[in-house]
Amino acid sequence: MASPSTFKRIAIFGPGLLGGSVAMALREMAPETRVRVWGRRVEAVRTVADRGLAELASTSVAEVASEADLAILCLPVEHMAALAAELAVHLRPEAIVTDVGSVKRVVMDEVAPLVRERAHFVGSHPMAGSEQAGFEAARGDLFQGAICIVTSEPEKREPEVLAVEEFWKCLGCQVRRMTPDEHDARVAWISHLPHLLAAGLVNAVQENAPEALELCGNGFRDTTRVAAGPAEMWTEIFRHNREALRDSAEAMIEKLREFATLLDGFDEAGVRARLSAARDVRDRLKKT
Amino acid sequence: MASPSTFKRIAIFGPGLLGGSVAMALREMAPETRVRVWGRRVEAVRTVADRGLAELASTSVAEVASEADLAILCLPVEHMAALAAELAVHLRPEAIVTDVGSVKRVVMDEVAPLVRERAHFVGSHPMAGSEQAGFEAARGDLFQGAICIVTSEPEKREPEVLAVEEFWKCLGCQVRRMTPDEHDARVAWISHLPHLLAAGLVNAVQENAPEALELCGNGFRDTTRVAAGPAEMWTEIFRHNREALRDSAEAMIEKLREFATLLDGFDEAGVRARLSAARDVRDRLKKT
Repeated sequence: MASPSTFKRIAIFGPGLLGGSVAMALREMAPETRVRVWGRRVEAVRTVADRGLAELASTSVAEVASEADLAILCLPVEHMAALAAELAVHLRPEAIVTDVGSVKRVVMDEVAPLVRERAHFVGSHPMAGSEQAGFEAARGDLFQGAICIVTSEPEKREPEVLAVEEFWKCLGCQVRRMTPDEHDARVAWISHLPHLLAAGLVNAVQENAPEALELCGNGFRDTTRVAAGPAEMWTEIFRHNREALRDSAEAMIEKLREFATLLDGFDEAGVRARLSAARDVRDRLKKT
Repeated sequence: MASPSTFKRIAIFGPGLLGGSVAMALREMAPETRVRVWGRRVEAVRTVADRGLAELASTSVAEVASEADLAILCLPVEHMAALAAELAVHLRPEAIVTDVGSVKRVVMDEVAPLVRERAHFVGSHPMAGSEQAGFEAARGDLFQGAICIVTSEPEKREPEVLAVEEFWKCLGCQVRRMTPDEHDARVAWISHLPHLLAAGLVNAVQENAPEALELCGNGFRDTTRVAAGPAEMWTEIFRHNREALRDSAEAMIEKLREFATLLDGFDEAGVRARLSAARDVRDRLKKT
């Protein structure tokens, strides 16, 4: 566990599931931090203030940004660039901006340059989301044990990256560093493809055998849980990682086709080998 | 909640996850029931006896079967016919035999006739399994709220079916009745296809991007949890429901192909419509 955050003044933009959880976690893990929160809607800002999560909660970007050492963009990816443009002019030159977006190439291409004209930018992806969304689902322990990927371009100056890594560790995350492209390629497999499969499965059952949904137990619920996540957000994620996602979907189609062939005539050894291999890999995931 | 089981003497064959859980649930919900347990291995039988879960725990089929009002086959489907043949000669003519198999057509074709020469047979499928297996995973509350499908052929005499339904309700299940073919067709969609997808996903990631597995969070764990289930058991389930499973896998391939086409060039409205539809259906499942 890291000691309290290296940042004295932290500005959180967007008090949703992740932004709200950052504010709550800071109060628990680094209560001496001075936290300011920006929200677009007055009611959202008022909720944060009522909960005593910030010294200032406001709809004014300037007020929240002006003294921050660290600003965290906790908005959907499609709204980040507009906010970054507005935000940048208020930043101190030594300030660092990071984000929590589920895709990183687009953030580095479209958001980072706007910030870097005035200050520093380091991309982050704390993998602590769930099918829930909004401040109501926020929790101070959301980041405990979660993986947080911090992206670093080869040309990036190191101290800012280290400081952002230290910040996420302070909140309880296990930090991994990789390039934005490595990030997008890997999360396509372990997050975006699983979401596509879950949504596709739900739709396939609804269209082909809706009466079967009345029978579903924990297995089906687990397998499809992520499909209950916000459709707008996932549409944007799919858009910004569409090539890697399409490649992984094609690989999955191949896997299913192979299984279908094994089921014809029933190749027992082939089916068992594939189920055993999957069980062995999945068993190891329990321990990590 | 039903009152105590209508059966006074219950024989459980196979003290694994489901058989062990039936014994534990009976002790809690219907403690006056006289329970006998048969196990193939002496150690398994001894564990049941040591836990005080039965008036008799034995490796002798005759001893366990002879006085039972209800006998429950809690073995893998591929072992049921041999046991049923051995068991049938010891049954009283009014005895009812049921099972807990995940496929029902094969049980009705290969197991039920052996029993029906001497007594009654009603198929059951309590959908309370998990990726865990064995007596160590058994729990007295395993059946609370679980769906249990009781299969009834048109020619079946009703009283035995009603008695078996009452039994599962007594253990906490929500009972649904349908024919064996309806059962197999529906569980292909909500249990067997999800298992195939989970195993295929794990294998696809392991083969294409093993480094991504280090990053996996709750979403990937949920989506693939069932793939940790016993490979032998699932190979037999796939064998006995291979046609329905192959059809559902083909439908899933179509869904993925459709998604891949939408990702090419990115049809935003098309992607959003599919993710929204899936979210709406999955949201409704939370409430049932």
